[in-house]
Amino acid sequence: MSAHGYKVVGTRPVRPDGADKVTGRAAYGADVHLAGLLYGAVLRSPHAHARIRRIDTRGAEALEGVRAVITASDFPPADAGRIIDLGEGQQTVAEVRGNMLASGKALYKGHAVAAVAAVNRHVAEEALGLIEVDYEPLPAVLTALEAMREDAPILHETLTRKELGTDTGEVSNVAEHFRFELGDLEQGLAEADVVVEREFDTATVHQGYIEPQNATALWNQDGRIHVWSSTQGAFVVRDTVAAALNVPVSRVKATPMEIGGGFGGKIRVYLEPVAALLSRKSGRPVKIVMSRQEVFEGTGPTPGSHIRVKVGARRDGRISAAYAFLAYEAGAYPGSMADCGAMCIFSPYDIANLCVDGYNIVVNKPSTAAYRAPGATNAAFAGESVMDEVAERLGMDPIDFRLRNAAHEGTRRADGPKFRRIGCVEVLEAMKNHPHYSAPLEGPNRGRGVAVGFWFNVGLASACTIGVNADGTVNLVEGSTDIGGTRASIAMQAAEVLGLRAEDVHPVVVDTDSIAYTAVTGGSRTTFATGWAAYEAAHDVLRQMKERAARLLETEPECVEYQDGVFRSGESRMTFAEVAARLNETGGPVTGRAGVNPRGAGGSYAGAIADVEVDPETGRVSILRFTSVQDAGKAIHPAYVEGQMQGGSAQGIGWALNEEYCLSPGGAMQNSSFLDYRMPTSLDLPMIETVIVEVPNPGHPFGVRGVGEANIVPPPGAIANAIYRAAGVRLSRLPMKPETVMEAIWAQRD
Amino acid sequence: MSAHGYKVVGTRPVRPDGADKVTGRAAYGADVHLAGLLYGAVLRSPHAHARIRRIDTRGAEALEGVRAVITASDFPPADAGRIIDLGEGQQTVAEVRGNMLASGKALYKGHAVAAVAAVNRHVAEEALGLIEVDYEPLPAVLTALEAMREDAPILHETLTRKELGTDTGEVSNVAEHFRFELGDLEQGLAEADVVVEREFDTATVHQGYIEPQNATALWNQDGRIHVWSSTQGAFVVRDTVAAALNVPVSRVKATPMEIGGGFGGKIRVYLEPVAALLSRKSGRPVKIVMSRQEVFEGTGPTPGSHIRVKVGARRDGRISAAYAFLAYEAGAYPGSMADCGAMCIFSPYDIANLCVDGYNIVVNKPSTAAYRAPGATNAAFAGESVMDEVAERLGMDPIDFRLRNAAHEGTRRADGPKFRRIGCVEVLEAMKNHPHYSAPLEGPNRGRGVAVGFWFNVGLASACTIGVNADGTVNLVEGSTDIGGTRASIAMQAAEVLGLRAEDVHPVVVDTDSIAYTAVTGGSRTTFATGWAAYEAAHDVLRQMKERAARLLETEPECVEYQDGVFRSGESRMTFAEVAARLNETGGPVTGRAGVNPRGAGGSYAGAIADVEVDPETGRVSILRFTSVQDAGKAIHPAYVEGQMQGGSAQGIGWALNEEYCLSPGGAMQNSSFLDYRMPTSLDLPMIETVIVEVPNPGHPFGVRGVGEANIVPPPGAIANAIYRAAGVRLSRLPMKPETVMEAIWAQRD
Repeated sequence: MSAHGYKVVGTRPVRPDGADKVTGRAAYGADVHLAGLLYGAVLRSPHAHARIRRIDTRGAEALEGVRAVITASDFPPADAGRIIDLGEGQQTVAEVRGNMLASGKALYKGHAVAAVAAVNRHVAEEALGLIEVDYEPLPAVLTALEAMREDAPILHETLTRKELGTDTGEVSNVAEHFRFELGDLEQGLAEADVVVEREFDTATVHQGYIEPQNATALWNQDGRIHVWSSTQGAFVVRDTVAAALNVPVSRVKATPMEIGGGFGGKIRVYLEPVAALLSRKSGRPVKIVMSRQEVFEGTGPTPGSHIRVKVGARRDGRISAAYAFLAYEAGAYPGSMADCGAMCIFSPYDIANLCVDGYNIVVNKPSTAAYRAPGATNAAFAGESVMDEVAERLGMDPIDFRLRNAAHEGTRRADGPKFRRIGCVEVLEAMKNHPHYSAPLEGPNRGRGVAVGFWFNVGLASACTIGVNADGTVNLVEGSTDIGGTRASIAMQAAEVLGLRAEDVHPVVVDTDSIAYTAVTGGSRTTFATGWAAYEAAHDVLRQMKERAARLLETEPECVEYQDGVFRSGESRMTFAEVAARLNETGGPVTGRAGVNPRGAGGSYAGAIADVEVDPETGRVSILRFTSVQDAGKAIHPAYVEGQMQGGSAQGIGWALNEEYCLSPGGAMQNSSFLDYRMPTSLDLPMIETVIVEVPNPGHPFGVRGVGEANIVPPPGAIANAIYRAAGVRLSRLPMKPETVMEAIWAQRD
Repeated sequence: MSAHGYKVVGTRPVRPDGADKVTGRAAYGADVHLAGLLYGAVLRSPHAHARIRRIDTRGAEALEGVRAVITASDFPPADAGRIIDLGEGQQTVAEVRGNMLASGKALYKGHAVAAVAAVNRHVAEEALGLIEVDYEPLPAVLTALEAMREDAPILHETLTRKELGTDTGEVSNVAEHFRFELGDLEQGLAEADVVVEREFDTATVHQGYIEPQNATALWNQDGRIHVWSSTQGAFVVRDTVAAALNVPVSRVKATPMEIGGGFGGKIRVYLEPVAALLSRKSGRPVKIVMSRQEVFEGTGPTPGSHIRVKVGARRDGRISAAYAFLAYEAGAYPGSMADCGAMCIFSPYDIANLCVDGYNIVVNKPSTAAYRAPGATNAAFAGESVMDEVAERLGMDPIDFRLRNAAHEGTRRADGPKFRRIGCVEVLEAMKNHPHYSAPLEGPNRGRGVAVGFWFNVGLASACTIGVNADGTVNLVEGSTDIGGTRASIAMQAAEVLGLRAEDVHPVVVDTDSIAYTAVTGGSRTTFATGWAAYEAAHDVLRQMKERAARLLETEPECVEYQDGVFRSGESRMTFAEVAARLNETGGPVTGRAGVNPRGAGGSYAGAIADVEVDPETGRVSILRFTSVQDAGKAIHPAYVEGQMQGGSAQGIGWALNEEYCLSPGGAMQNSSFLDYRMPTSLDLPMIETVIVEVPNPGHPFGVRGVGEANIVPPPGAIANAIYRAAGVRLSRLPMKPETVMEAIWAQRD
């Protein structure tokens, strides 16, 4: 039993999906087979920016084995301006469709232009070569700063700049400029004894999930559309397919297959409506599986960004003012994560006077998508680098400086809301007290850096049903894709309520026909919100089981107590299993149900301590030791919390040191394979140490915060700060790859 | 709107599964494909009765491509005497296992003895030939009367005769002799002016479902067993697999595929545990699909029977006494349907003095199973033939005679309970008033006969959940295999409650992990009991929707009224769809749930009017016209009620005229193909006319009774009575095939 008196919560049972995944039995999207299945392929633009004058599909249609060829003109009529919710932002139907099949213009290299369904993959790919597209190439704009220039090529003739909430009517690549303000920035700067202002650039990086996007669709004769795909949210698939194809949501059945990683990149929908249109045209089910190149070029990476940060502090160590300018690349369509960056960049700190200017800017790159605490990592790299420099200028230990300014209950977040109970101080104290922080770091070219990061986490809607089995176990039906072990972490919450063992709750993730609406697995919400639904559904089961027990014990339900798996009334007792075995004779099967949309998502803080060694000859940075600290609120299954922390840290390290889209001047990605896009492997990383901090979230029955994201935020800042101590250079550009490091070292020597 | 004010109940919407079934998209058991799938085959006994001295599987195991060979010894240890519920009766674990893989003795030709899994079907079948079984053939006993003789070969050395509730300890083929008694039979016979006593024999017949039994099983590395099969009840599969393999029920996941007919024959489980054992031994999923010969020889037909009926009546037309002796062949293991026959034979009548002796008798034939009103058709053939003769002797019209004696509310059934409101009189009146009954029937060798029949119907446990979609439709999740249109008839009851269109309720039949316990689709219970669960779940939805509407209308839930799809509070109103679109903002998704085990199943009466022509040269009987009348209580979807009536009538006609197991003296079936086992085709039948009578069942919210079975009961009796009027002979043996008819005609001429 844990300190809280929990029996299941906080333990580490075997994951329910483990056997299937290690034996290869788990069924992923590419495993879907249907009678008469056709294979689809997508033709993609070779230009980063081009007008599409004409598409001639006749050659492809004439190829033997080709059953359907489609372009954007095959979308059924719809209200193009209708806003739809993508699970991580909103877009118009026209934007959603435009990214699935380009209409009028290709806006990035890899933009889908047409699609083919054929009897096999080879014929489909051959047919792509027979589609003639007449392009008028246009100049491409590839970075936020370039795109903001008045003479920049314009992506969308209909996109007008929103300036602090007002539509200016001015056609622009700047979709939006927003501002968060607290206090009086100028006043705060005036009070400062030390002011540091720096500029930063971060590259476009990809989530790098191992399983490519895929979709199989059957547009049935009765008008219902069934899709199977790799997704973080079957209901987002349902909603997006319905919106793109202009049918009611209940006409779409989305079956979420097992998912080989998502990290935010499998929320938006790319292939399902395309496969569905091909299915309608061919009368057959159609499967499309992306290549790795298509994943890099045709799906949403995280925004590259240009960031300027200015922080002022008094000699007493208190930050008096902070400013950030965040220009985020949205990619081809409006909607970047600048707002999230703005919400997070200064959230570890209690700052009276601050201002953040955020810019969403369209550029000729793939339309960006979420990536683990989206927008926060870019921002924290900049913010934590500057904080480190301010601390240095004040002569303070970097953790002490942060503790001096740490956000706490009542601190106001940049975008307004006040924090409830949060764990920023506890995370910083855990970092400070960790043996890593005080361990000697000997040898030349070595340095230690720290950084902290924040992610606000979200709630959103989730549903659960729980059916009781005659053998005293229960089945838990849920709609949340299990990416990081949420079958277990949700089932354990039901088990805790029901007084059962974790193994006695069998979780099952079902399709959109078989459970009520459940939002994406994302925003660190699943263990929090779907877990809450499981908690409520378990209570609904218990209420009914008490009635049954009362009937069997010949008393009233309110006289029945339940504890540790036993119903008691006076001297009489029956176990949960004994009552479960007699449900049919006491009124029929028992099902619990719940739907929730909890508002109390508690933000999570994470910190990182990084030891690096910089090779002064090559600029190569090696990670010697790495510790990740995070406030989980309550760790339902600590092993999975640690797994999230290690995974997020590894991704943050990759982002810090190596990952980037290398683009040609024309906007073509030069490294669209895992050989050339350098993600860290096990050989690049030490064992990542983890410390789970538990400051219970008052907005959740078990105190859960959600741990999927904040852990990716600190690594780039921590590593930049470590590199400074190892090599004496402050880097302002991600990734901090050897040439970047060497250039800084050489510049310093000059 | 119907007379009852219903908007959906009583209408004829398109069936939700129609498109998939007519386009070939519906997935049946044989369509299951899994990675690494092996194909299984079953070795069956060539002897109807034989001791198994030894099974040598080494030859089969050595064949290339064979991955596993099993016999009964591969069952894990278990309590062989434990009783398990099969969904239509109970058996011990030993009996259940014994029928799946013979242990010690083969008890019928076709009895499974061993099974093989191999890389394909051909190798598996070849391997069967390499299994050496050393049989000691024993004399076989093939009919009830023979098996009752003292010198009969004994099937089970451990089976002792139960005599009127007491175990005699005497080893016997008679598993049980039971008796139902009302009043004083001898007294009733003494009061009679007319007494008719006749003996009858009926042949073994098969349900003849078009889709053979099949099963795919995966015994997973984590110990869970997943089976996919063609079944009338996924939870019966789960329970039987768990019992046979001695694991808790929650270790088994049963997925019901679409079903190509069952009629009671797909309740018992034959292949699933065998496939599971092969899977465990091979480490791979295994699929077994029966051939038609295996279906005939290895699955459960309905019992052959010997029946004696004696009825006495007074000159005033009142029946004063009725007696029946029912000896039913259980097949190889105890448990026939004699009790059902006994409950039904006299149930259309209000008889003060009656007695039924029932016998369950084991014989060397396949273990029998349910077949549409199991046991009642045999009995009614006998009972209705005698009633017809009594009416004739009294000089009464056969319907008037039945009306004079018709069962009604308060009449006591042979086994004790008093009827609530029933529709026996209404069915008889509908027959009498039908144009068919008064239509002239001209020409030689033609005759018209009538008969009535009864089936008690059952309740049993069912669960439902209903999730509300944002577009104002709902998904209905259920565990009832849809054989005859129950997706529609269940969904329509939810639609009626919810004020939605039938098309706005999307039913989905799920596996045993995804819904709480739901008993078989059988006993005419599905529209009644699962429909009731849907009704309750819909009310659970409405309660929650009212709360949401109240929040949006800024009032209290008790102030909200709901009618015709609109929530109202004073002048304010919102449609169901408007509230559905705003669930997430008002608290989260809405799910309704219910579990029921209703006790109020109301029996259903059916009647048949048959016009026949008998060819005096060949004895061939042609059906000229046929009308089926049945009390549905309330016909939820009248087209499916009519379909059930037509289907049951067609099967009853086949049973009456042609169908039978033709056995060799040694007990081998000689006609185990659809070429030789003569079921009626469309060429053999006229369009069957239907009349739905609606006497609402007071034990169901919409008055549903259940219509799947009673309709098969009257045809043999009605046809026998028609043959009598056409040819002057009363037949006492089913089927009334040409040679039987000719023998009777010749015997009469002699």
